[in-house]
Amino acid sequence: MSLDFNTKVFEKEKIQLAEKEEYIVKGGRNLFPKLNEAFEGINQIGVIGWGSQGPAQAQNLRDSLENTNIKVVVGLREGSASMKSAEEVGFTKENGTLGEMYSVISESEMVLILISDAAQADNYKKIFEHVKPGSTLGFSHGFILGHLNNSGDKFPENVNVVAVCPKGMGPSVRRLYVQGKEVNGAGINSSFAVEQDVDGKATDIALGWAVALGSPFVFQTTMTSEYKSDIFGERGILLGAVHGVAESLFRRYTAEGKSEQEAFVLSTESITGPISKSISKKGIISVYEQLDSGSKAIFEKVYKASYTPAFDILIECYEDVECGNEIKSVILAGRRHSRLPMGLIDETRMWQVGKEVRANRVENDIPLDPFTAGVYCAVMMAQIDLLIEKGHSYSEVANESVIEAVDSLNPYMHFKGVSHMVDNCSTTARLGSRKWGPRIDYNLCQQAYVAIDNDTPLDDKIFNDFLDHKIHGVLEVCASLRPSVDISLSE
Amino acid sequence: MSLDFNTKVFEKEKIQLAEKEEYIVKGGRNLFPKLNEAFEGINQIGVIGWGSQGPAQAQNLRDSLENTNIKVVVGLREGSASMKSAEEVGFTKENGTLGEMYSVISESEMVLILISDAAQADNYKKIFEHVKPGSTLGFSHGFILGHLNNSGDKFPENVNVVAVCPKGMGPSVRRLYVQGKEVNGAGINSSFAVEQDVDGKATDIALGWAVALGSPFVFQTTMTSEYKSDIFGERGILLGAVHGVAESLFRRYTAEGKSEQEAFVLSTESITGPISKSISKKGIISVYEQLDSGSKAIFEKVYKASYTPAFDILIECYEDVECGNEIKSVILAGRRHSRLPMGLIDETRMWQVGKEVRANRVENDIPLDPFTAGVYCAVMMAQIDLLIEKGHSYSEVANESVIEAVDSLNPYMHFKGVSHMVDNCSTTARLGSRKWGPRIDYNLCQQAYVAIDNDTPLDDKIFNDFLDHKIHGVLEVCASLRPSVDISLSE
Repeated sequence: MSLDFNTKVFEKEKIQLAEKEEYIVKGGRNLFPKLNEAFEGINQIGVIGWGSQGPAQAQNLRDSLENTNIKVVVGLREGSASMKSAEEVGFTKENGTLGEMYSVISESEMVLILISDAAQADNYKKIFEHVKPGSTLGFSHGFILGHLNNSGDKFPENVNVVAVCPKGMGPSVRRLYVQGKEVNGAGINSSFAVEQDVDGKATDIALGWAVALGSPFVFQTTMTSEYKSDIFGERGILLGAVHGVAESLFRRYTAEGKSEQEAFVLSTESITGPISKSISKKGIISVYEQLDSGSKAIFEKVYKASYTPAFDILIECYEDVECGNEIKSVILAGRRHSRLPMGLIDETRMWQVGKEVRANRVENDIPLDPFTAGVYCAVMMAQIDLLIEKGHSYSEVANESVIEAVDSLNPYMHFKGVSHMVDNCSTTARLGSRKWGPRIDYNLCQQAYVAIDNDTPLDDKIFNDFLDHKIHGVLEVCASLRPSVDISLSE
Repeated sequence: MSLDFNTKVFEKEKIQLAEKEEYIVKGGRNLFPKLNEAFEGINQIGVIGWGSQGPAQAQNLRDSLENTNIKVVVGLREGSASMKSAEEVGFTKENGTLGEMYSVISESEMVLILISDAAQADNYKKIFEHVKPGSTLGFSHGFILGHLNNSGDKFPENVNVVAVCPKGMGPSVRRLYVQGKEVNGAGINSSFAVEQDVDGKATDIALGWAVALGSPFVFQTTMTSEYKSDIFGERGILLGAVHGVAESLFRRYTAEGKSEQEAFVLSTESITGPISKSISKKGIISVYEQLDSGSKAIFEKVYKASYTPAFDILIECYEDVECGNEIKSVILAGRRHSRLPMGLIDETRMWQVGKEVRANRVENDIPLDPFTAGVYCAVMMAQIDLLIEKGHSYSEVANESVIEAVDSLNPYMHFKGVSHMVDNCSTTARLGSRKWGPRIDYNLCQQAYVAIDNDTPLDDKIFNDFLDHKIHGVLEVCASLRPSVDISLSE
């Protein structure tokens, strides 16, 4: 995969991540005046869909393009229940910024397809029939390419096809953008991919889109690499695995005789509070480094015991994504949802306790538990190693394993529990989190915790590899590329 | 799917299962004199592989063919560690009944491919090159057909292709056969399928094979229908789901304050003891009917709450099997096993407690817990309804959801715990059980138990459908077709 590109509008910057060079574009509000040039020839951007990404992207684009003549129009199914939500934030039929999706598609020079993955799979033929020749088709995810590969189908040949994929759920893309009005550069990083370029403008259109969303740091990928790392990542430490880790630890701590409240604090609160914040500001290694020597020993033992059982499930998950299985499953699930809607994940005792704990929370009193930290960091590092092994760029690895977790997603779990994090994401993510969380949980209980309790000899190499890992340097570079902003969540 | 066939050697019998007629062959040692005729033209049967089915089938065939000139020869990879085990039960190079697999394949008029599914997928081309034209290729599972479908490949055209699929793991196929020396008709039911018939003899060869294995009751299927129901069934109530049910209940009961020993008895012991025995002898409905009115109310409530959350996971699993995903995953997993071997599932506290409980077990004192029974029966019934909805014959439904569970598999868990059941099965089954057990567990905890604890209104129709279900009549007919024999397990 080439990690270089040509832009006529923006400045690209070369960065060194471990042994590799990558080119990126740094975003920021100072670049908004360049958007007119980046979107040359585009009079209307159609934003199709109102799920996780739709509301965020439509609003960010509208705000960023305020001083241009480019109109942002939301397109939805006729009669969609989301029409009302779109109207509430100012996209209305009256002012010409809300319409039936296929009309919007055929009238726009750029169309962002942000409907659910399953809906894309079911409707792509009709969508492709409606796009204007010479226009730009945009996605925020490579899923559709995976589905086309499974079906032996292709994009229409006469349009640009680009992807801009924010490395965070829609609500945080919006939230940080709003915060970015005060702190220039606050935002969610994005990857971009140019899959087809019919007029030589596709790269700058994609970069303009990312900049307009408020991404502080835009790195290159391919749609294939994106969908693999993204669909996998959310099943892993971003959503599914962190849920499984939290459940397994809560159960372990209560079985040890701790109160339910204490067990919740030591498991979930510790992850979403001090562990995430430490990783966000000072990298993964900082979690270990700040411990006292007794806690360091616990962390080390737990890390060594957890790494391989986590890697085992993560590689299974990755290869199920890679071979097209997960994409097929998501589409099948979508067809079952009218009969069997997805169930709630936070009605169990643990998450009820979580509510009480949050109600009485004193943020600075949340302890950084070394056992919890050892498990969490081991799962995160297993994900990092797997993505590197599978050939992803360091930017993609860092964002899909670390930055998205601690800066975009865990804060939602911290704010209102696991469902507030998982169920604010795409249907593909929600399904995958439900599928893989339990697997990580079982593997940790059956293998890692058993090894810890039985004092089974563990492999020192696993921990030495952690201490010396090149990801630590990579995260430092990534952190330098954007201001450190805590996402601020409220009702 | 036609459920009729022509046999020149055996007698077929018409049975009525609910609204449908099926044709079956009843087995028994009295039919062994007919095997010469069924296997006309076959001088040597090659049994390839020594996993779960290999040792059982090779020995049963050898014993059943004792008074014929047909030689049973085991074929293994040169240098295989299993050579020694085969020699221990009398298959030796010296007496000409043990050899290198490809030599055995090319010398035999009938070849039974009993190597693991992943090994079949990796080696089928070479196997197909070595089979004699006009010979019969036999499988005990439709997996290979699913893999050929995924790969766009085919069986060689010049051979018979048949399947005889015992509805129980290999060790129980052998164990009940040995018991059958005293009780004529004891054995594991089999389905059979004729995929290719080049000489008009394939049906009788398949029936002869099933009779020689000791199957009391042989019913017809197709290889496609077989692999769907089989790969799904073992992920469901046969292995994966019963494991998940047991884990979820043990955890629930300990959280309620019961001792670990009591929790194990009320969950696992209750399932593998009185619940399984009652179902085996008097059908699923008997579990409910024998309860007192207070327990009946508990059973009903729990059943109603558990059915849909179980159905939800089971249909996901079925459709992942149906579309080829599970087959692809199993093959990918097989390629990872040298690097990441499957982990143990019974080292956790629960299964350690199980050991103590079994050591002090008084069989007749194991209670039939109505809560446990409600969950277990709901999951079993959800599996039954799903298989009926997906068009499987009643024979297949009854065997893949009920008979195999209570007569072949649960006795192994009863004897020595969950791994003794799961890990005595095929690699495909072991992988699938590990994959889907945790899913059932989570869905039950997140939805069923929450609904029970919150007194959420539940749908009466779910329970009325259970009371009136046609499976009860089907199981009565199935039970009449074979003697009721408890499998007797020992070290």
